Amino acid sequence: MSGKIEVGILGATGTVGQEFIAQLRNHPWFTVTWLGASERSAGKTYRDATPWRLPVQRPDRVADLMVERVTPGHAPKLVFSGLDASVAGDVETAFAQAGHVVVSNARNHRMDPLVPLVIPEVNADHLELLGAQSEARGWSGRIVTNPNCSTIMLVMALAPLRQFGLRQVIVSTLQAVSGGGYPGVASLDIVGNVVPLVRGEEPKMETETKKILGQATQDGVEPHPVVVSASTTRVPVINGHTELATVALETDPGQDALVTAMREFVGRPQEAGLPSAPPRPIVYMDEDDRPQPRLDADRDGGMAVCVGRLRPCPVLGYKFVTMGHNTVRGAAGAAVLNAELLKVDGVLD
Amino acid sequence: MSGKIEVGILGATGTVGQEFIAQLRNHPWFTVTWLGASERSAGKTYRDATPWRLPVQRPDRVADLMVERVTPGHAPKLVFSGLDASVAGDVETAFAQAGHVVVSNARNHRMDPLVPLVIPEVNADHLELLGAQSEARGWSGRIVTNPNCSTIMLVMALAPLRQFGLRQVIVSTLQAVSGGGYPGVASLDIVGNVVPLVRGEEPKMETETKKILGQATQDGVEPHPVVVSASTTRVPVINGHTELATVALETDPGQDALVTAMREFVGRPQEAGLPSAPPRPIVYMDEDDRPQPRLDADRDGGMAVCVGRLRPCPVLGYKFVTMGHNTVRGAAGAAVLNAELLKVDGVLD
Amino acid sequence: MSGKIEVGILGATGTVGQEFIAQLRNHPWFTVTWLGASERSAGKTYRDATPWRLPVQRPDRVADLMVERVTPGHAPKLVFSGLDASVAGDVETAFAQAGHVVVSNARNHRMDPLVPLVIPEVNADHLELLGAQSEARGWSGRIVTNPNCSTIMLVMALAPLRQFGLRQVIVSTLQAVSGGGYPGVASLDIVGNVVPLVRGEEPKMETETKKILGQATQDGVEPHPVVVSASTTRVPVINGHTELATVALETDPGQDALVTAMREFVGRPQEAGLPSAPPRPIVYMDEDDRPQPRLDADRDGGMAVCVGRLRPCPVLGYKFVTMGHNTVRGAAGAAVLNAELLKVDGVLD
Amino acid sequence: MSGKIEVGILGATGTVGQEFIAQLRNHPWFTVTWLGASERSAGKTYRDATPWRLPVQRPDRVADLMVERVTPGHAPKLVFSGLDASVAGDVETAFAQAGHVVVSNARNHRMDPLVPLVIPEVNADHLELLGAQSEARGWSGRIVTNPNCSTIMLVMALAPLRQFGLRQVIVSTLQAVSGGGYPGVASLDIVGNVVPLVRGEEPKMETETKKILGQATQDGVEPHPVVVSASTTRVPVINGHTELATVALETDPGQDALVTAMREFVGRPQEAGLPSAPPRPIVYMDEDDRPQPRLDADRDGGMAVCVGRLRPCPVLGYKFVTMGHNTVRGAAGAAVLNAELLKVDGVLD
Repeated sequence: MSGKIEVGILGATGTVGQEFIAQLRNHPWFTVTWLGASERSAGKTYRDATPWRLPVQRPDRVADLMVERVTPGHAPKLVFSGLDASVAGDVETAFAQAGHVVVSNARNHRMDPLVPLVIPEVNADHLELLGAQSEARGWSGRIVTNPNCSTIMLVMALAPLRQFGLRQVIVSTLQAVSGGGYPGVASLDIVGNVVPLVRGEEPKMETETKKILGQATQDGVEPHPVVVSASTTRVPVINGHTELATVALETDPGQDALVTAMREFVGRPQEAGLPSAPPRPIVYMDEDDRPQPRLDADRDGGMAVCVGRLRPCPVLGYKFVTMGHNTVRGAAGAAVLNAELLKVDGVLD
Repeated sequence: MSGKIEVGILGATGTVGQEFIAQLRNHPWFTVTWLGASERSAGKTYRDATPWRLPVQRPDRVADLMVERVTPGHAPKLVFSGLDASVAGDVETAFAQAGHVVVSNARNHRMDPLVPLVIPEVNADHLELLGAQSEARGWSGRIVTNPNCSTIMLVMALAPLRQFGLRQVIVSTLQAVSGGGYPGVASLDIVGNVVPLVRGEEPKMETETKKILGQATQDGVEPHPVVVSASTTRVPVINGHTELATVALETDPGQDALVTAMREFVGRPQEAGLPSAPPRPIVYMDEDDRPQPRLDADRDGGMAVCVGRLRPCPVLGYKFVTMGHNTVRGAAGAAVLNAELLKVDGVLD
Repeated sequence: MSGKIEVGILGATGTVGQEFIAQLRNHPWFTVTWLGASERSAGKTYRDATPWRLPVQRPDRVADLMVERVTPGHAPKLVFSGLDASVAGDVETAFAQAGHVVVSNARNHRMDPLVPLVIPEVNADHLELLGAQSEARGWSGRIVTNPNCSTIMLVMALAPLRQFGLRQVIVSTLQAVSGGGYPGVASLDIVGNVVPLVRGEEPKMETETKKILGQATQDGVEPHPVVVSASTTRVPVINGHTELATVALETDPGQDALVTAMREFVGRPQEAGLPSAPPRPIVYMDEDDRPQPRLDADRDGGMAVCVGRLRPCPVLGYKFVTMGHNTVRGAAGAAVLNAELLKVDGVLD
Repeated sequence: MSGKIEVGILGATGTVGQEFIAQLRNHPWFTVTWLGASERSAGKTYRDATPWRLPVQRPDRVADLMVERVTPGHAPKLVFSGLDASVAGDVETAFAQAGHVVVSNARNHRMDPLVPLVIPEVNADHLELLGAQSEARGWSGRIVTNPNCSTIMLVMALAPLRQFGLRQVIVSTLQAVSGGGYPGVASLDIVGNVVPLVRGEEPKMETETKKILGQATQDGVEPHPVVVSASTTRVPVINGHTELATVALETDPGQDALVTAMREFVGRPQEAGLPSAPPRPIVYMDEDDRPQPRLDADRDGGMAVCVGRLRPCPVLGYKFVTMGHNTVRGAAGAAVLNAELLKVDGVLD
């Protein structure tokens, strides 16, 4: 452990908190030394505070940690937040005021103009907002967020198309139940069924996409002009959000050039060799019945986004399928990659 | 039984054939008296020829029928075809030549310019093609087809919007496994998974829609100018295709007027009181998480198409969810309703 | 409606309450005129008090009823109880004291020596306990219960074997998620998974079976000497509990005689022609891969118990599969059948 | 690769063949250099011969191999057989005659008195049959088999109880669809359903168990006297067979002693440090709702068998739940572990 950066988890007993612990269990740079949760869990060992619900084994070292209340004070400088949105806003602000670097998966601060909403392959440069954030808010700490899980799978596939002028996107999602947390979606609602709405998800996809693809400025982000229309559904899949996207572009480089752009796409994580970075952020699949959640969600440890079936759309321009692991690339892994970016950019110093 | 019209089933041992038998088991006008299937089944009782795979009980009277080969001769004038596409083309032609009225669910003749492709609520007037069909082909019989199951759920929802000028449609499907027949989709491909392609389905939706909504003329159908872009997926649902549709219209009557148009939509089956007609072809649902296959696919005996979530789409105009029972309204029930229409239109005389 | 017996539902907004309303929607003898639920729902129309979660349409007449608190007073004499076990004990007692006939699906009073635990085909004679119940408790009303859903599928199949001397039963269950109520089992726990425990269910099966098959006496029920060992699991099925049972009998009449006993088994409901009675309580299926929940749970409106695969067991004697609809024959339908029995036995007079 | 033992795969394009390739992709001792399949695939690269259907990436090196016909000649000495039972018997015999060591997952030779049916933790000593096998059959090669996937999960849990005198076992299985191969179980049969029979499985469990636990002698295996009664079902789970077992023992050491025996159980693979051996063959879980396929099937790379809920059974003695990964510990991993045992025992020299 010696030499590793100590990290804390806000909301350690929840679904995302468990995912953080799983994601960090063998991390070369970070080590979990502090767990924060609600009053109900505080004072217990993590083992006693919550049943573990992931196939990955819970590290004994973490199981032995005492859970504390989610107030700043004893937590390490770097904290990951998997807090529920009902409390994340205030708690994360309190930690930032107290000097912590909060890397959050919660939605509360995502659309704050001075909070970077980052997918490291796409808009690593948005971290430059942190200076203005610190100044304007008077925080000695920082808050950095990652997008909603559905947004990430879409924006990753859009990023290599940005050079051709993104104008319009219509996207339909088929989302896994793990995105709803625990207990989350009732089995009576989803076994052998489809629910044609993931509450709150459509506006997030429509606005977050514009911010992430936008231009960071002195006092916020100039949103990208792309117009996004999202329709969301829940399907009986455990992990892996599948999305059917149709895009209108300013210029038409041809189908092959689009596929090549996806295949060759890389970003800061690949250039900097971040530990959680997949070799290629997008795995383009040639088979016409891929990607599939069961076969492809775990690709590159769940950090790759798999794309396939790019073909002309007679209405808008081109359409394709994008799919990725919603609790890894879409949540805990996204935040860990953000933290790795913060480290190489010196924000953790 | 006396007084009922005798009907035959082509492809009686297959999935669609079984659905025909189920759909017709208590029909007030039709009674199944003849079953045709492949060489392998011919000469056996229906009971021995195939295991019954529907929750509905197989009528004993039908179980006792001897299965014959699918050649014209002894079959009644009216035959329903649930034949596999690999043989349906030639067999159905042979029956039409021999004087039978073939009401087919197979895809082979659907795009034939002189074969009506009919959803009775939408384009009952296309039956007028039958005169030209008879003349041009020299058949003493007729062939009438119903659309692909995915097309039906879409076109039913588009029909009431036709008055506002349909320009463009982008649709994503989440299709049930019963659409793939038996054995059909392998369980390893679909349990807890999504397959982002239903092979052959997208072109069908894109072309059949234009024909159904088009204008019947002397020598065929002038296709409707609407441009359709379809993306199809298979999901682990037994019955009920869910579709997420976005439409661009010539004029914008406002969201309420569109919902009203859907609620008030009726067609020939409702006006003529056809036995299989649902009271309203479209059941518009106000709850924002409906329609759902498990709760709504059986609505009105599986003959209603359920629509919900009609709302503005920032890209094209409006978007909504449409869902219906793929083996009832989308296959066997669709064909039976076509046959009922043929009867009241005098085609069976 | 005129002439029908008015009935109330205790716990009308819960899962079992909804099932009661569905089960009674076209009942020839009973009509729902009163709905009781918790403080939270009281004072609202039923339509506003709870979302309806069944594929069967909610009757408009019931949707318009005002929900009242679950206290005696205005309710009709006959009330069905779908109350949660956390409150059912006291509330049902209060109703019985106030003169109501409480037909309960809750577990609280099932093992009370003076409360009949009834499957009408099996132990209709246990109603004779009601005299002692009234006398000992001083109630002007009555409480009658039906067994746990898993117990019913087992005991129905054991009943025709009773004549051969039931000694031992080992049973494994594969239970549907609807048995867990709503929201009940979390989708993360059950999609593509098995949970090898249905909490609290094994002791119920082991004790209720002995009471139902036992001998009613002056002051209770002499339990049947059969020893039952149950292992329970939850599987991703919506409706229909499947159970694998092995039995040791005192005498061995041979496999054919056992099958015949099951096929020919009838009880009071069949003899009295009760409206909810299936023609035969047990549908014995010859196919070696039946019964199956998807194909067979709705048999005879969900009131038949389907049995198959009866064959020798090299350890105990014989083994077989039994399966039935857990929310119909195993819950709401069971209670309605009990009420029908009470009516023909004069208990409702 | 240099220094590794070259191995071939008989039936390389099938489901089990793919699993062998996955299981061997990073093996420290073995390297796949030869692939055999049917006429239809022979002459193609493995990449072109079959679509890859596992989440694990197919090694490029294997994808480039040419597929040959399954005839001896060019194959390495050690071959794994994932052949279908319809051809495995003759082909495996031909390979053994030609001097190959055939490590087979097929059922054909399992009950041959001179073919070891081996779970290395349980009956590694049965390899001593190989001398008699060679002599009696005149083969220069050998055939060694592993049991049916359902048998393995049961026998592994029975092995530590053998010391207390196994008398009777009643077992119910809930089997995953991957056990049925590809395409295998139809999705219409299993989505939201249970099939109460896995054809052919029950006799295998009842006879293989007795052979594996039996005593190897000069001319075969003296079967263990335990009597096994199996009831099998298929459930909508991808990987992981769950089994509910009840056992009668000669002596009763008490519940704690049985749990301890399971926890402390080890065998030859652990003692010899075989590469595929799990640290403990049985992972005993204290939580009362475990093991579960989704959470536990991948434990120790899928090679551990997870057991839980050991408790008294009022009929036989004790009951418990056992669960393991059917295509790893129950098939390909089982055979690889057998091959590792053969190597340390000198059979591959």
